[in-house]
Amino acid sequence: MRAGRLIGVGVGPGDPDLLTLKAVKALTAADVVAYFAKRGNPGNGRGIAAAHIRPGVIEEALLYPVTTEIPRSDSAYLGALESFYAEAVERLSRHLDQGLNVAVLSEGDPLLYGSYMHLHVRLAGRYRSEVVPGVTGMAGCWAAAGMPIAQGDDVLTVLPGTLPEDELARRMRSADAVVVMKLGRNLPKVRRAIAAAGRTDRAVYVERGTMANEVVIPLARKTDDTAPYFSIILIPGCEIWA
Amino acid sequence: MRAGRLIGVGVGPGDPDLLTLKAVKALTAADVVAYFAKRGNPGNGRGIAAAHIRPGVIEEALLYPVTTEIPRSDSAYLGALESFYAEAVERLSRHLDQGLNVAVLSEGDPLLYGSYMHLHVRLAGRYRSEVVPGVTGMAGCWAAAGMPIAQGDDVLTVLPGTLPEDELARRMRSADAVVVMKLGRNLPKVRRAIAAAGRTDRAVYVERGTMANEVVIPLARKTDDTAPYFSIILIPGCEIWA
Repeated sequence: MRAGRLIGVGVGPGDPDLLTLKAVKALTAADVVAYFAKRGNPGNGRGIAAAHIRPGVIEEALLYPVTTEIPRSDSAYLGALESFYAEAVERLSRHLDQGLNVAVLSEGDPLLYGSYMHLHVRLAGRYRSEVVPGVTGMAGCWAAAGMPIAQGDDVLTVLPGTLPEDELARRMRSADAVVVMKLGRNLPKVRRAIAAAGRTDRAVYVERGTMANEVVIPLARKTDDTAPYFSIILIPGCEIWA
Repeated sequence: MRAGRLIGVGVGPGDPDLLTLKAVKALTAADVVAYFAKRGNPGNGRGIAAAHIRPGVIEEALLYPVTTEIPRSDSAYLGALESFYAEAVERLSRHLDQGLNVAVLSEGDPLLYGSYMHLHVRLAGRYRSEVVPGVTGMAGCWAAAGMPIAQGDDVLTVLPGTLPEDELARRMRSADAVVVMKLGRNLPKVRRAIAAAGRTDRAVYVERGTMANEVVIPLARKTDDTAPYFSIILIPGCEIWA
């Protein structure tokens, strides 16, 4: 029997209409649909793609063992994640070995800061695989803000908000367009770094971009420090307004 | 009479199945479909979206006045482009003033290095507007290569190949994941910069990613210096392979 196929499917930034035709076809054809989620939460990817998951398809919820309880630098965190991915690989392999096609949902794009890539690097060498790229979270956010992000000779720098404050400020100083991802509890630090780099003026804060309850406001007018993990700060490049 | 609506529609990196459901709806509902093209060439955006352009819809081909004949730094180049965008704005305004909805096709994403944004900044203040984000060219390329590009604390830097060689090398040295766009005649210079930054080993060259005739090869194995403008070089970040 021929083994099944692994397909990483980008489901886009949140609006279900931002799935691609190819993602819809992949989901319609899949025997198994897998997705990452936190315990007690059905998973954002699953929610975005819900309309295209066939009734009766096999679903595999891959539940993260830890989220924010343990510091990322802790070896217990890395160890727990390693076991988690090993177990996920085993679960999906069982389906693939039986000739079933397995689609793994990925918010945004599967290969840009997505959990899917941890499965991809472990499985793509053993099984046929394909990646369906998706609209990234950041593209959804700059569309929601109606903000041209980079043009001409602009350099675009994408910074995880998890980086140290001085590194964030240094990189922002030498960048044209900037996207800061993974805000969450990092927002106060990121805000200080943006101020230190003199980039507060045109920075825009976007929360749940392209979703029904999206928030788009100038960073300078966001007075509280509460931000979900998937919120983003955008600083446009220079050329188009020069 | 109420004026029409301007909609920037991302059509993705090349595979027509990478249009989003939202893009298809926007094209189906549009009274006018506009797209950028070179003289004598139907336009890539028009080609990608062809299946969803209604027969009988009004089409506006916006033909670039110059492409590579005049150096970008030349004031004649900038002047010609300025007149071009002014004329395009006038053509689209006539439709919008008559209450027609105008969709402007954009390869990849409309607000990331796209010509659409030049119309957006001139028209979005005067008319209702919306942007439908698209799968970027670079996401199409790293999906085609099956290459996880950035993960965890990786910084992603997107560099136009038009930048000076020493700036390219300097920025590559301090970056984790790197995407170099706009290769074309810049390929020999970009290749030297990548070598100077010591990043040749894992660099991958992708041409026409997601299209039928795509090319994906390690940069070190690309022996010629011929590259279309929309080819890309990808250098993955560090974390996932650490």
